[in-house]
Amino acid sequence: MRVFEKGYIDENYVRIPKDELFSFVVKVLMKLGVPKEDSEIVADNLIMADLRGIESHGVQRLERYVDGILSGGINLRPKVRIVREGSSYALLDGDEGFGQVVGYRAMRLAIEKAKESGVGVVVVRNSNHYGIAGYYALMAAEVGMIGISMTNSRPLVAPTGGIERFLGTNPIALAAPTKDKPFLLDMATSVVPIGKLEVYRRKGKPIPEGWAIDSEGNITTDVEKVFNGGALLPLGGFGELFGGHKGYGLSVMVDILAGILSGGTWSRHVKNTSEKHSEVDHFFMAINIEAFVPLEEFKEKMSRMIKELKSSKRRVDRIWIHGEKGFLTMETRLKAGIPVYRKVLEELNQIAESVGVEKLRAGESCERA
Amino acid sequence: MRVFEKGYIDENYVRIPKDELFSFVVKVLMKLGVPKEDSEIVADNLIMADLRGIESHGVQRLERYVDGILSGGINLRPKVRIVREGSSYALLDGDEGFGQVVGYRAMRLAIEKAKESGVGVVVVRNSNHYGIAGYYALMAAEVGMIGISMTNSRPLVAPTGGIERFLGTNPIALAAPTKDKPFLLDMATSVVPIGKLEVYRRKGKPIPEGWAIDSEGNITTDVEKVFNGGALLPLGGFGELFGGHKGYGLSVMVDILAGILSGGTWSRHVKNTSEKHSEVDHFFMAINIEAFVPLEEFKEKMSRMIKELKSSKRRVDRIWIHGEKGFLTMETRLKAGIPVYRKVLEELNQIAESVGVEKLRAGESCERA
Repeated sequence: MRVFEKGYIDENYVRIPKDELFSFVVKVLMKLGVPKEDSEIVADNLIMADLRGIESHGVQRLERYVDGILSGGINLRPKVRIVREGSSYALLDGDEGFGQVVGYRAMRLAIEKAKESGVGVVVVRNSNHYGIAGYYALMAAEVGMIGISMTNSRPLVAPTGGIERFLGTNPIALAAPTKDKPFLLDMATSVVPIGKLEVYRRKGKPIPEGWAIDSEGNITTDVEKVFNGGALLPLGGFGELFGGHKGYGLSVMVDILAGILSGGTWSRHVKNTSEKHSEVDHFFMAINIEAFVPLEEFKEKMSRMIKELKSSKRRVDRIWIHGEKGFLTMETRLKAGIPVYRKVLEELNQIAESVGVEKLRAGESCERA
Repeated sequence: MRVFEKGYIDENYVRIPKDELFSFVVKVLMKLGVPKEDSEIVADNLIMADLRGIESHGVQRLERYVDGILSGGINLRPKVRIVREGSSYALLDGDEGFGQVVGYRAMRLAIEKAKESGVGVVVVRNSNHYGIAGYYALMAAEVGMIGISMTNSRPLVAPTGGIERFLGTNPIALAAPTKDKPFLLDMATSVVPIGKLEVYRRKGKPIPEGWAIDSEGNITTDVEKVFNGGALLPLGGFGELFGGHKGYGLSVMVDILAGILSGGTWSRHVKNTSEKHSEVDHFFMAINIEAFVPLEEFKEKMSRMIKELKSSKRRVDRIWIHGEKGFLTMETRLKAGIPVYRKVLEELNQIAESVGVEKLRAGESCERA
């Protein structure tokens, strides 16, 4: 039986052991002046994305982060500042640090506050791209809490009826402990994230009708038209008939909770990592389950619900639970190594050369999944 | 120019002034033993749904609530009990009272807590159907806070790959103040709520492909097949291609936050209002904006974002903001009266007769919208 792996891979990918990739990223970042602890946080976040099958947020992002460091878009020694604070909330200014570093500290603070007072809400302005939203939600689930994480992001999605890239793919993540692996919802509020389109572009394949529009606002299957002035569609798709206005609303919700509540901005004004003041804003929340009900009771019910879901009547072999594919993929990749696209490996090794770090060696080729 | 009205109406609807309808509902409930204050809360919630164009949650629900009272499914004198409490959170037991009554008190408590400590989270178990989720979110927006409201609900939606009615349409509502009317997202986490299918059924029209499945798990346009053992699809639709697993995940998120966190249950076990222990659970949250940023700055940014959205490039006459259609509909109906379906009017007058309350008089017929 084939082991399970989420995400597209084929013979253009090579396997690299997780530890090698992790220490590579840490070394590159440290060479560029990122403190060791911060480098490890960023690396952990990128590697977790790759382990969980979210390639778009994995080590292939390193190039953009390096650009962000070199252009001054990322502040390597941010003075993360608590602007306002109460027993169960805080507002942080990220001082344009790495989104992962700022996000990690913010979620730690939310967890501390939830420990003390049942609930912790921490909003952050002046940050940068923070990687996978689920990373922070999982931090809470690991200590027996419900974790929520959201971020605005650069504009890629058109509102219902609109043509312009106005909304971000603004992800929402929620993690909750069970008796086994945590439940982990981690979703872009668009039909698909932009990374999916990049895979289709690379393969030269048409995209499904209903993912995106061209620059005139018509649904298109031509991925190039999307990249040339088109836009992604919000979850629910084109128009209102199938609820496109709901995805649009969820995206604005993230802009409100992360961007406007923090004194930051909304996705339309969010810029790339390489630019100064990219103005990314986050929202984090931790709920201390023990303050409400016994943790064991909560976990037991979570596991019972999941068991019932899995054994309910179905038309497929298996009903999936959120996060499950990611955990299975992680299991596979911790053993077999992380698939890295050859072109990405080349990019990584160019970075290695330019900063003076030992290059990565290509492992064995992947097979088509 | 025609005034704007959301929702389907035609010549089978008659107009009834809002105040008449409100006092009718109050009188009926009081005759059945509901305290005056509680009757007014329930009536206000139902009438607001009708005013905002959400007919499925308006006065047509009264019959089901009356059934719930007569069958003992609704406790008319609930002892709403605070089970656990901290400065920024509480867990309530609704003692099987009216969802609206329990929900109103819970949201008031969340607002009080947010006033004191920036954030208020109140979860509720042992409640009943609470009407429109947006009602509670708006309570917070009216006092300058962000309001969030969610509820589990009886099973109507199949998880991705599933056939069984397992999930509820589990709505998520978020309201936030602006310089003008509040932003109000109020959405079922299914493609459409069941009320939409009831309208198609009444009209004898096929439903769009992608709203629901039949008892075999196939997409169907035959609304009768959905009512006979079929199920609604989660937001994002059939399968994973357009993100159906996201709507499924959002629905489970509501079950976790409202049902499992409160020591209650998940939608699969939620029952109708007429049954004892219908086990509906809610989640409420209020965020005191002033604790984070000046309220005026927040409102100003909200209004600026909305203005930018409305003036962005579009393929339609108008880009709508969440809640806007509802507020316009309310404006129209406060003047012209609330459209009530003739058959619903008959039902209401049968109730009037059976409890001994003066009947409603039919107003003028509506035209087809």
